[in-house]
Amino acid sequence: MPYAYETDGAAIYAESFATIRAEAELARFDPLDEQVAVRMIHAAGMVELAPHIRFSPGFTAVARAALEQGAPILCDARMVSEGVTRKRLPAGNEVICTLHAPGVPELAQEIGNTRSAAALELWRPHLAGALVAIGNAPTALFHLLNMLEDPDCPRPAAIIGCPVGFVGAAESKAALWADQPVPCCVVDGRLGGSAITVAAINAVASRAE
Amino acid sequence: MPYAYETDGAAIYAESFATIRAEAELARFDPLDEQVAVRMIHAAGMVELAPHIRFSPGFTAVARAALEQGAPILCDARMVSEGVTRKRLPAGNEVICTLHAPGVPELAQEIGNTRSAAALELWRPHLAGALVAIGNAPTALFHLLNMLEDPDCPRPAAIIGCPVGFVGAAESKAALWADQPVPCCVVDGRLGGSAITVAAINAVASRAE
Repeated sequence: MPYAYETDGAAIYAESFATIRAEAELARFDPLDEQVAVRMIHAAGMVELAPHIRFSPGFTAVARAALEQGAPILCDARMVSEGVTRKRLPAGNEVICTLHAPGVPELAQEIGNTRSAAALELWRPHLAGALVAIGNAPTALFHLLNMLEDPDCPRPAAIIGCPVGFVGAAESKAALWADQPVPCCVVDGRLGGSAITVAAINAVASRAE
Repeated sequence: MPYAYETDGAAIYAESFATIRAEAELARFDPLDEQVAVRMIHAAGMVELAPHIRFSPGFTAVARAALEQGAPILCDARMVSEGVTRKRLPAGNEVICTLHAPGVPELAQEIGNTRSAAALELWRPHLAGALVAIGNAPTALFHLLNMLEDPDCPRPAAIIGCPVGFVGAAESKAALWADQPVPCCVVDGRLGGSAITVAAINAVASRAE
C-alpha cells in the first residue's frame, strides 16, 4: 500500500511557514527581518532557532537593496553557493565561492590559516558592496573581521555570519556582533551552518514565500 | 587589534570531536556508528542531536562496504552532492544528483509530485547497491519508499534518511524506520538537512577523523 503524503510544493511551503509562525517567537523581529528568520527556521527544522537569530537594524533592507543593485554574493563554502536559488536573485547576481580556486592551499600554508580563511583573500576585488555569507568556517569569519580592520579593505554591504560548530563559531559571531562593521545577521552560539545561511540569502533575495 | 583564534584545521577538528564526545550521550552507539553520529552532531553544532539519531543494525558496516566496492552515492539535492568530500571516497565513487536533469520538471507535472520526488525516477539505473542520501525533501523519501514497494525495483545497499522540516519530514522518516527496506540511518522528527546528511556520508566514506 503506497504512502499518501502532500506532493504539492507550494502547499508544503505554505503549511511549513504557517506552522513556524504559529509556534516560533517572532514578535521581536521587524516585518522584513521576520521573513528571513522564518526561512532560516524552516531550513533548520527547529522553531527553537528563533531566539538565536539576530539582525542589526536595517539588515534585510540594506542587503536586499545591494542585491537589487547587482551586488555579488560571496560564500565561504560550496554548499552555500550551490544552495542559492538562482531564480530568486533580483539582478542575475554573481554567486562566488573561492574555496577551491587555484593557489588557495598554498596561500593557506603561507598565511598559516585554514583554506577557508585564505580563500577570502581572493574576495578583495569583489568585496565592495557585496553580500557576504559565511555559513561554515569560523576561521573565515574571524579572517574577514581582521581584513576589515584595515580601513583600505573594501566594505561589503552586509554580512550573514552563521558559521557552525564547537571551536570558534560562537566566538567569531560574538566578535562580528560586537564589531558590526556593516549591517549583519548572525545566529549566536554553536548553531548555524550552510542550510541556515542559504535560507537567509534566499529570503533576502526575494520577498516571495 | 586583530582577533587571535585557532587556525589549524586538524586541531579544530580534534577539539570539536573531543567536545562532542565529552558532552553528548553516545554510549548507546556501537563504535562504527558512533563515529558517524559524532560527525553528524559536528555538522549540526548541537549535541542535542544525539538522541534523535538512529542506525539500524549494521548500517555503517554495510554502507561503508558498498562504497569500498565502488557504489555510487545518490543524493536528493545539490547541497548534499556538493558537500561530499571527494578525497574521503574509497573508490572514486560517483556522486549523483538528478534534481536538475532535463525532463524532471515535466516528469514532476506528469506524476503529480515535487521535482525532488520525480528526480528519483532517474535513479533507477544506478540504484542497485547504491548508497542513498536524502537530506532535503520528505517527498523524495516517501517516493523512494513507494518505489521500493515494487519488488522489481532495484535495492540500494543502504539509506541515509534525513529530510528536514515541518511537513512530512517526521512522517517520512518514521515510515523508513518502520519499513527498513535496507539498513538505514535516520534523524527522527523535524531535524535533519543537507549538512547533517553530508556529514553522515563523509563519515561512512572514511574512518579518518
